[in-house]
Amino acid sequence: MIKARLFTPGPTDVPPEVLVEMAKPMFHHRTPQFQAMFAEVNAGLKKMLLTANDVLTIAGSGTAGMEAAIACASRRDKKVLVANGGKFGERWVKVAKVYGLDVDEVVSPWGTAITPESVREKLATGLYGTVVVVYSETSTATACDLEGIGKVVAGTDAILIADCITAAGTLPLRTDEWKIDIVATGSQKALMLPPGLATVAVSEKAWKIIDAIKAPGLYLDLKAYRKMVVKNDTPYTPAVSLIRGMKVSLDMINAIGVEKIWARSALLAKATRQACVALGMKVFSKQPSDSVTGIMYPPGVDDAFRKILQSKYGINAAGGQDDLKGKCFRVSHMGYVDPIETIGMIAAIEYTLAELGVAVEIGKGVAAAARVLKDWA
Amino acid sequence: MIKARLFTPGPTDVPPEVLVEMAKPMFHHRTPQFQAMFAEVNAGLKKMLLTANDVLTIAGSGTAGMEAAIACASRRDKKVLVANGGKFGERWVKVAKVYGLDVDEVVSPWGTAITPESVREKLATGLYGTVVVVYSETSTATACDLEGIGKVVAGTDAILIADCITAAGTLPLRTDEWKIDIVATGSQKALMLPPGLATVAVSEKAWKIIDAIKAPGLYLDLKAYRKMVVKNDTPYTPAVSLIRGMKVSLDMINAIGVEKIWARSALLAKATRQACVALGMKVFSKQPSDSVTGIMYPPGVDDAFRKILQSKYGINAAGGQDDLKGKCFRVSHMGYVDPIETIGMIAAIEYTLAELGVAVEIGKGVAAAARVLKDWA
Repeated sequence: MIKARLFTPGPTDVPPEVLVEMAKPMFHHRTPQFQAMFAEVNAGLKKMLLTANDVLTIAGSGTAGMEAAIACASRRDKKVLVANGGKFGERWVKVAKVYGLDVDEVVSPWGTAITPESVREKLATGLYGTVVVVYSETSTATACDLEGIGKVVAGTDAILIADCITAAGTLPLRTDEWKIDIVATGSQKALMLPPGLATVAVSEKAWKIIDAIKAPGLYLDLKAYRKMVVKNDTPYTPAVSLIRGMKVSLDMINAIGVEKIWARSALLAKATRQACVALGMKVFSKQPSDSVTGIMYPPGVDDAFRKILQSKYGINAAGGQDDLKGKCFRVSHMGYVDPIETIGMIAAIEYTLAELGVAVEIGKGVAAAARVLKDWA
Repeated sequence: MIKARLFTPGPTDVPPEVLVEMAKPMFHHRTPQFQAMFAEVNAGLKKMLLTANDVLTIAGSGTAGMEAAIACASRRDKKVLVANGGKFGERWVKVAKVYGLDVDEVVSPWGTAITPESVREKLATGLYGTVVVVYSETSTATACDLEGIGKVVAGTDAILIADCITAAGTLPLRTDEWKIDIVATGSQKALMLPPGLATVAVSEKAWKIIDAIKAPGLYLDLKAYRKMVVKNDTPYTPAVSLIRGMKVSLDMINAIGVEKIWARSALLAKATRQACVALGMKVFSKQPSDSVTGIMYPPGVDDAFRKILQSKYGINAAGGQDDLKGKCFRVSHMGYVDPIETIGMIAAIEYTLAELGVAVEIGKGVAAAARVLKDWA
């Protein structure tokens, strides 16, 4: 009777309202019923992403959305600049290479992120048509200055593709104001859905480039999605139950207002960081993301920590990757996770550390978290 | 996007496993399929209640079960002794009177409960055929010594009817060992179901009395339920989806072992009491139940407290009744509620007190709760 809670940086817990909606009987997608629903979903996505751009919904994971963006929107007569500060940055380098693009990567040490200045210097060469950045690099729990980078790229001919998969709906994101040409999301993060949907918001500046390029594939051809989205339809069979669920989750998000949700995530992240510091641990990142927090294990602790956290307390956390494997854990502040269970999660961290022989003062972390979260409501 | 949590002393939160089971397509109840399921449910109820007695399931609330017991098992040539220490004790007096029974009530001041000694003295008169007690009086968050009372009644010709509606599955309850003749439960408490089912466990001693009495009604005639339960069937249409859900919840409870759940509830109750005391509040009851905790509001606080707790933090708590109206709140430790959210609930109490102008040290309550709950897993 351990209540499972997803503190993983995706998937995140799905609200019961969404689960119930997705459990309703199936209907056919080439119908006015689907189009009416999809119209509302498309409006809801624009509202959440603060954009007037088309937002395309693809049945696929976030990777499908990013691949579509990189493959369709990268000029072949220019180079692609990919900011690589972790596993997802790495992946976008790989995607660009798969399509035979001429890629330069700017590697940032894990726990740091590319700066607007660094992007400006690179773009000054005139070599680049596309800049690809990860707003919140999930693997390192690190956020970059997307607003600053947006301003830099906006002043050039290049376009900016932002992996906002673990950022949209959690970190401040003003797509149009910040002039982010392509914003990609995934459903299983702040959108509070199961995995299976990617959304891609595309600016007019990006469409001009996309329209001039012969699409390198069929399923991930953004032009095909744009042609249909204006009719509130999709080129290929849409994931109907997920889109139904997205209608409900977007209604929830937009009823509150996404800015309020950003503030709540920031507070959850701050509470988690301060609680862990109070317990004698260190935050991994130098530029911590408020979507996900990465905490270094204290000496003598390894991934047995996460196993206990899950099996005894029902708290699902992510581990470290590559060099960080077995050295840290990561917990999410996205979507439906709330302050009540975040405080409880800190207690589970305390108990697990104590069980592993770490000298912790039980109650110190939860008290620190409670103080930070005082004004969340 | 406030996550609603039921800390009310019934209904309690229903596990997703149970909700999903209850959402499955309906089937007919006069079938081998139903009987096979009901056989497992009946075995599961006996296991949870630690009894070899028949356990009868009635489609109705806990009140229906208690009314059936009082109406069917009270000898008409003897008096009925009802222990009244709160709203439910009051209700059983009323039930006995509705059936024209000769009732004596032993009134305990709210926050206290009838003692075995007091029952012994009364029974020594030889006047009583039935003793009715409330194991956990929800209205006052007070528990009696049911084991002690069981021993006293067992040594007489009288039978003991125990309202275990907010006790079974939460407080220690050994039906056969303690010789409790009739144990009544309700589904929306530790059984982790929606309201709609009552169960009544009946000893052989009680059946002898019941069999000698002409049932005063049809629907609540326990004899009719007994006749069918031996065939794993019911006299009237059973609440099939609730019984399906009960199969799942009993499996969950019995897989863990009900004794472990008693221990967990006791720890949750202790943590809540100590946290509230740390925050300067007082526990109402002199014999606090571990099913539900009643906490007096500090000076200057009224039921606005509960409204804030619900609207801002999603925590549903119960208020005080009668003389306690507006003077206290009550939170549950039954069923699916867990330590993670109990610690978070304490934080919400801290925030709400602070908002209402009470000088609380934020974090003091949660730290106290975290210390108590250290060994729950």
